[in-house]
Amino acid sequence: MDFLLYDWLQVETLNQRERFADHNRETFDAVLDTCERIAREKYAPFNRLVDTQEPQFDGEKVILPQATHDAYKAYGESGMLSAAQDYEHGGMQLPYVVEAAANAFFAHASVSIGSGMLTTGNANLLMAHGSQRQREVFAAREFAGEWSGTMCLSEPQAGSSLSDVATRAEPDGADFEEDALGPRYRLRGNKMWISSGEHELSDNIVHLVLAKIPDASGKPVPGVKGISLFIVPKKLVDAEGQLTGQRNDVALAGLNHKCGWRGTTNTLLNFGEGKFPVDGRAGAVGYRVGEPGKGLLYMFHMMNEARIGVGLAATMLGVAGYDASLDYARNRPQGRPLSAGGKDAAAPQVPIIQHADVKRMLLAQKSYGEGALALLLNCARLVDESHTGTPAAQAEAKLLLEVLTPIAKSWPSEWCLEANSLAIQIHGGYGYTRDFPVEQYWRDNRLNMIHEGTHGIQAADLLGRKVRMMDGAGLRLLGDQIMDTIGRASILPRVRDHANALEAALAEVSMATEAIWTFDGEPDANAALANAVPYMQAFGHMVLAWTWLDVACAVVAANDGTPASEGRLRACDFFFHYELPKIEAWLLVARNRDQTAATMPDEAF
Amino acid sequence: MDFLLYDWLQVETLNQRERFADHNRETFDAVLDTCERIAREKYAPFNRLVDTQEPQFDGEKVILPQATHDAYKAYGESGMLSAAQDYEHGGMQLPYVVEAAANAFFAHASVSIGSGMLTTGNANLLMAHGSQRQREVFAAREFAGEWSGTMCLSEPQAGSSLSDVATRAEPDGADFEEDALGPRYRLRGNKMWISSGEHELSDNIVHLVLAKIPDASGKPVPGVKGISLFIVPKKLVDAEGQLTGQRNDVALAGLNHKCGWRGTTNTLLNFGEGKFPVDGRAGAVGYRVGEPGKGLLYMFHMMNEARIGVGLAATMLGVAGYDASLDYARNRPQGRPLSAGGKDAAAPQVPIIQHADVKRMLLAQKSYGEGALALLLNCARLVDESHTGTPAAQAEAKLLLEVLTPIAKSWPSEWCLEANSLAIQIHGGYGYTRDFPVEQYWRDNRLNMIHEGTHGIQAADLLGRKVRMMDGAGLRLLGDQIMDTIGRASILPRVRDHANALEAALAEVSMATEAIWTFDGEPDANAALANAVPYMQAFGHMVLAWTWLDVACAVVAANDGTPASEGRLRACDFFFHYELPKIEAWLLVARNRDQTAATMPDEAF
Repeated sequence: MDFLLYDWLQVETLNQRERFADHNRETFDAVLDTCERIAREKYAPFNRLVDTQEPQFDGEKVILPQATHDAYKAYGESGMLSAAQDYEHGGMQLPYVVEAAANAFFAHASVSIGSGMLTTGNANLLMAHGSQRQREVFAAREFAGEWSGTMCLSEPQAGSSLSDVATRAEPDGADFEEDALGPRYRLRGNKMWISSGEHELSDNIVHLVLAKIPDASGKPVPGVKGISLFIVPKKLVDAEGQLTGQRNDVALAGLNHKCGWRGTTNTLLNFGEGKFPVDGRAGAVGYRVGEPGKGLLYMFHMMNEARIGVGLAATMLGVAGYDASLDYARNRPQGRPLSAGGKDAAAPQVPIIQHADVKRMLLAQKSYGEGALALLLNCARLVDESHTGTPAAQAEAKLLLEVLTPIAKSWPSEWCLEANSLAIQIHGGYGYTRDFPVEQYWRDNRLNMIHEGTHGIQAADLLGRKVRMMDGAGLRLLGDQIMDTIGRASILPRVRDHANALEAALAEVSMATEAIWTFDGEPDANAALANAVPYMQAFGHMVLAWTWLDVACAVVAANDGTPASEGRLRACDFFFHYELPKIEAWLLVARNRDQTAATMPDEAF
Repeated sequence: MDFLLYDWLQVETLNQRERFADHNRETFDAVLDTCERIAREKYAPFNRLVDTQEPQFDGEKVILPQATHDAYKAYGESGMLSAAQDYEHGGMQLPYVVEAAANAFFAHASVSIGSGMLTTGNANLLMAHGSQRQREVFAAREFAGEWSGTMCLSEPQAGSSLSDVATRAEPDGADFEEDALGPRYRLRGNKMWISSGEHELSDNIVHLVLAKIPDASGKPVPGVKGISLFIVPKKLVDAEGQLTGQRNDVALAGLNHKCGWRGTTNTLLNFGEGKFPVDGRAGAVGYRVGEPGKGLLYMFHMMNEARIGVGLAATMLGVAGYDASLDYARNRPQGRPLSAGGKDAAAPQVPIIQHADVKRMLLAQKSYGEGALALLLNCARLVDESHTGTPAAQAEAKLLLEVLTPIAKSWPSEWCLEANSLAIQIHGGYGYTRDFPVEQYWRDNRLNMIHEGTHGIQAADLLGRKVRMMDGAGLRLLGDQIMDTIGRASILPRVRDHANALEAALAEVSMATEAIWTFDGEPDANAALANAVPYMQAFGHMVLAWTWLDVACAVVAANDGTPASEGRLRACDFFFHYELPKIEAWLLVARNRDQTAATMPDEAF
């Protein structure tokens, strides 16, 4: 982590910028150390406990283990919820890349207990798009850890298809535009998959809810243009943000029982069904954020960081599995490789890390996990650039983030899950038991290909929008960056072959992109997108190869001869030898617009 | 299943053989229908229940849900435990391929409840290597379902490394060779990962235990040559097999709590620790099977069928996930593809099976699951051939099974697990909840890469032994069979391209095998085997491509124009377009004897 932040990304140079002028490596390290300690003391020891003691609903309240309360409290007290905020709002003006790195410790220790990511994201959104009063009442209390936040997008009948949101918001009374907290509506509808939707961890829960305002004819506007955004507090508050003592009409309809990530409540919420009438009427009171019809726009404003957050959680689960299986492999004696006696059972058994196949599985995990971590930190660094760079640098960083975000979210979700499976495999039968942590990492990680936009949605976003936007400017920019790395690597004998391999991969991906969209002059986007996922898999492997090569250049430049440096170079070698060649098979079907599956008749399945 | 058994494998022609002369398609179908019904009524409805209500040890007994007792009883009453046995032993003389197909229904319905596979395998071993009395006392009662059986191989300090077995067996008294049940020993040691090692489902449990007899100096003989096999009943029996009312000195030391497969007890057993002394002394009473030092040989006699059984369980989990996700995809409306209105939210939502990416994930599952099923049934058919064919055919079938068994076990374990992950993905968030069956299939399936020989062990067996044995005769025989299929396929326009692709793949795998073992004239087997797993992955994909092409030849020959036939041809197309090209990347590192991981210094991880 230190190497990636300071040697590779040179994060300490951020203090040359006005916003970060008070910071330096010591202040960054202090934050990282604090988070590492809290994660080690308050999160890691309870990761299995919260997996076993799932949230229970007693009819009134959701019961969570004491450990979850303690962890929540410690996180709030760390100041991490508002770390990136301005000093004047009680924040530390910490760069996002340092905030992300610090949060990685909690994901490593226990994603299941849950992070403050949703609360921070919720409050950040209000800082960007809410009114002054909304920021003071809601965002400020979220940053302080008094209240927590949710994002209420999905509905039971419309998971990923947000244009089909059916929750309605109707103006509440004649004076609805005059409420101090914002234009006041009544919401009715059901929201599904709401993380932390009900609990007693905080004094209040600030739901941010997508809903449609009916038009003059009383019908909701179809499509995403009809969607607005509302603040719906669990408990009603007055204009100063004091709890009025009255509940809002938001009711827990059910807890989802999941395969993993069991420490976090995941809920089905009924808004406005009348269980908790307000002023004698059904309908959850909500305050509109910003303008009508811009709900999704506001929500997507936060999406890049949310997706980086998911990618980082997936990554740290991968790293946690690597750490656990490395420890196991060093300490578990079993068998003996041919080079150490082979079938000579009179020879002592050796630690399994001496078996070549175990080394292969360890190095694969290292190349997936540390490679993903490098990519995620680079993306986080780009977020800072997009906020504090020169105007030209900001524009460039934003464009690059558009192209990289689908990879930053999808690639770790897929490959760090594979890393977790390898961690189980190294443990053998023990890895399949709940006495070791790796099976939980694997279960927890399986969610990451689903939430915050499924794999399929990331792929359609990448191939359908991101590589085509602005006439391909994003793809060209990424290509330039990759060529820059190749230029630096090609003069280093240690990694020159990799530079050549990456250049070939970049050419293949570029040609495939071109071929997919110019196929026989065929404008059928449906056919083009049929293999968006294999395309994204190839694209992702190219991005990771680039990331590893760029890291390797920094390692070679450091020339310190440490085992850690040797390990990084080996992980880079592994990626180029074992992984990058896989792109051929994925690109083949994408390039050929293979329609074997897409044209399969329903009845033939 | 019918198509594979009757149209492709032409299983009904087995009745031309004397052993199966009484059978015909009607008798086979009667068995299949009975098993399908029992699986549907007694297994499938309780698959989630047994996942939730794990086995509990109350200090005396292991408590299992009533459903498990009912399923166990129904299975025993079906006659499946002894289906393949001679009429004179109460069997049906059913071909193994039909037995395997019938057992597949139970795996599809619930692997977690557990099958009778271990009991049948245990009794089969005794029929082959036990004394007349051991067969009558133990095997007969196992076939009847009165007693159940286990295989006790692994120990806590020696999982896959059987040469390090430390359980000791010492002659029990001066008359130890004169016991009617076999030479009588006392065993002391701990056995780990023992499935169904303790329960109340049957009147007795027949443990088959690997242990070492000390030599004249009192020390166990190192290595596998020192291993003998013993019958250790949970409850002691007299020479006629009547329970004496006394327990043997076998104690449950713990239940393993697993990630999946939770309906089955998996135990740590202590043999001879003195908890249940026999004749006032510690030591579990065991009866030697066959000759000393041949324990592993006897055990491996059953290994092919056990590994086919694991492969079949993995396969049916894959098929079950396919069935569940196909049903979900046909009934879940969400979104609309570009071809059906795209972003026009006023258009109705469509079932998600209309989305190209969902179709891709369904067809991938179909190509994995049905391809694996075809391979497994073919292997089962070869088992029959190895028992009842002409002497030449027997020898050929045995040789082919040697090469195919590592693939039959490993390939479905890996790819039908991937199929289960795709089944979750199709369900979206719902697939991650325990309200739908797919997350359980995925958890249950994860075991299959571990038990009955890990992935790494299968790969070392394939590359280190099977493709080299008898100077490569097994590999050549497989090559001949593949070329035979290619010959038939190459005159069929519908699959001619696939025939060419398979021929190229066969050449690549053959050349890689040659290259690995002649690398620079380098005899270092350690270096050759460092990439045994990627080699096996490539080899497996070649075998599956061959299997699909051979099935496709039968489909084309049938020329019936049904949707099912179209589906099979599409699944074949999918495998050749999307999957077979993956072998390049795997073969690359195997062929190059890539040592990136194998030579990684420990401290660099």
